[in-house]
Amino acid sequence: MIVDVEDERELIEQVLIRHGVPGPVAATQAEVLVEGDLRGQHSHGLQRLPVLVERLRRHLIDPHARPRFCWHSPAFALVDGRRGFGPAVGFEVVDALLERQVPVAVAAVRGSNHLGMLAPYVERVAAAGAIGIVLTTSEALVHPWGGRRAMVGTNPIGVGVPTGGPPFVLDMSTGAISRGKVLGHALAGKALEPGWAVDADGEPTTDARRAVDGAVSPFGGPKGYALGLALELVVAACTGTETGERVLGTLDGEHPSTKGDLFVVLRPSGPGHDDFASRMGAYLDEIRHSPRATGAGRIDVPGDRARRRRAERQRAGVPIDDEVWKAAQELMT
Amino acid sequence: MIVDVEDERELIEQVLIRHGVPGPVAATQAEVLVEGDLRGQHSHGLQRLPVLVERLRRHLIDPHARPRFCWHSPAFALVDGRRGFGPAVGFEVVDALLERQVPVAVAAVRGSNHLGMLAPYVERVAAAGAIGIVLTTSEALVHPWGGRRAMVGTNPIGVGVPTGGPPFVLDMSTGAISRGKVLGHALAGKALEPGWAVDADGEPTTDARRAVDGAVSPFGGPKGYALGLALELVVAACTGTETGERVLGTLDGEHPSTKGDLFVVLRPSGPGHDDFASRMGAYLDEIRHSPRATGAGRIDVPGDRARRRRAERQRAGVPIDDEVWKAAQELMT
Repeated sequence: MIVDVEDERELIEQVLIRHGVPGPVAATQAEVLVEGDLRGQHSHGLQRLPVLVERLRRHLIDPHARPRFCWHSPAFALVDGRRGFGPAVGFEVVDALLERQVPVAVAAVRGSNHLGMLAPYVERVAAAGAIGIVLTTSEALVHPWGGRRAMVGTNPIGVGVPTGGPPFVLDMSTGAISRGKVLGHALAGKALEPGWAVDADGEPTTDARRAVDGAVSPFGGPKGYALGLALELVVAACTGTETGERVLGTLDGEHPSTKGDLFVVLRPSGPGHDDFASRMGAYLDEIRHSPRATGAGRIDVPGDRARRRRAERQRAGVPIDDEVWKAAQELMT
Repeated sequence: MIVDVEDERELIEQVLIRHGVPGPVAATQAEVLVEGDLRGQHSHGLQRLPVLVERLRRHLIDPHARPRFCWHSPAFALVDGRRGFGPAVGFEVVDALLERQVPVAVAAVRGSNHLGMLAPYVERVAAAGAIGIVLTTSEALVHPWGGRRAMVGTNPIGVGVPTGGPPFVLDMSTGAISRGKVLGHALAGKALEPGWAVDADGEPTTDARRAVDGAVSPFGGPKGYALGLALELVVAACTGTETGERVLGTLDGEHPSTKGDLFVVLRPSGPGHDDFASRMGAYLDEIRHSPRATGAGRIDVPGDRARRRRAERQRAGVPIDDEVWKAAQELMT
């Protein structure tokens, strides 16, 4: 079904408010879920709402929590999310880092819930004229190279850079595909693309049903594995949170969140740095207008495609799975 | 030919000293080239020496230069490398960041020469008990996704994490392959692997001779392109250095270096962080000992393979291309 974006937002807010969430917090969480669906990252959209409500019911999310900041230096804060909603904590952290007005500021966050898409956080940083980098760990879903068991998170990376125009926005998982997509393809009887997953023996497979019992592959082979693992170590070490199979509580409704988030804000400064945004924008335009490969339609830079899709869906509505919409509506009763 | 590692080191040092480089600086530069060959990254080994000497002759490298630090905050320095050797500047920057003893310290470096491999820098940070991240830009060699022209650097990333034992060491390019490997395969008439490069029309090719006129592909498809481009923007913005086709002076003997380097040192601190290194080491051991895919030999984590190769070559000698050795020896005359 196609849903008006404001109807989706309203439904999420009302569900959360009905479950005791203060209005502004409900609005922030709704915003991030809606952005997932607007940009086509449905695994970070409305379909997350039932788990969030279940976590509220079990007090794994405290809707009234405010993060506690412990500044270890003018540039580094260790933050206890105190079981708050991921977006409520995340945006408060971003704002605190931006307020510092320093060349580099870092926050290592633990005890917070799922951030959802990373794009909205780095976009807020870019809108303030700075560079934002956000890393977060996830449940172990990705197999090591040469292995068959999921030991590494899908550990996404978000990077936002101001350009004078629409920002550069990278928001990508280090897994080849989401676990949700494997499950969706298995249900629909659709084949996976080569390189997306392995079966229980660690053999690459395009059979989604076999992949359900296996693991997601890292994107880009051994390099993607190495990168995803590096991000897991950096985040876990800086935040004092868990690694591998001990990371829990972002996909499920039963475990406290044991993942970590790392937020970095960089403010280029010094001689010749004032125009860095327009300089980066000009470079990105060079790339967009560089010669295309034979048969290629368009050269994008990160953020372009999501921005086009978002605009189209704001106008024409958001495709939502019937079951997902029904499940969300039932949370009102 | 097989060369004793100490003979290689001695040759490089003597060549550099003969060209006016002070002994300690020659030793540092030699160390990083030797490490490239020891670990099998020959494109960052002895074969770079003729270009370094040419750059010395043309005063594009100043062997006496000391980097100038401008601390914009207790955690952030803008560094002018003043045309120094990349490793001389790089290690001085690493040491300056470590000396700060703060939770996060960042140096944005411009005006320095080629760093060589990134592993030695992040290993020094890890040996000091901290986490090191090094990014650097390179000449445009990689095509954008959907494009045919090289517009993005191979922009490598280095990450070092202490583990209580041998450190985790990631040192990888965001290109699928080095330009040197394309040229080498073309000379030898060897085929490339699928996904490594495109021809002049932007068509994927395994014909190395056609790839010479084309461009290197990013690793991991569109995600690798997005990541490499993000790193280029972050480094160029923070260092005030060039982007895309304006990045020059690391592969050639004629242009001033216009690339940038970003060094980050993170010191996890706070309750529960004291044992972070051993915690990360235990997690990496879990991965190494996790179930292997059918037919897979061994599960490594980043750093393992290079460490094995390095130990073997220290013992048995380093394979060096005859022409490369001859060219280096001729620099003595």
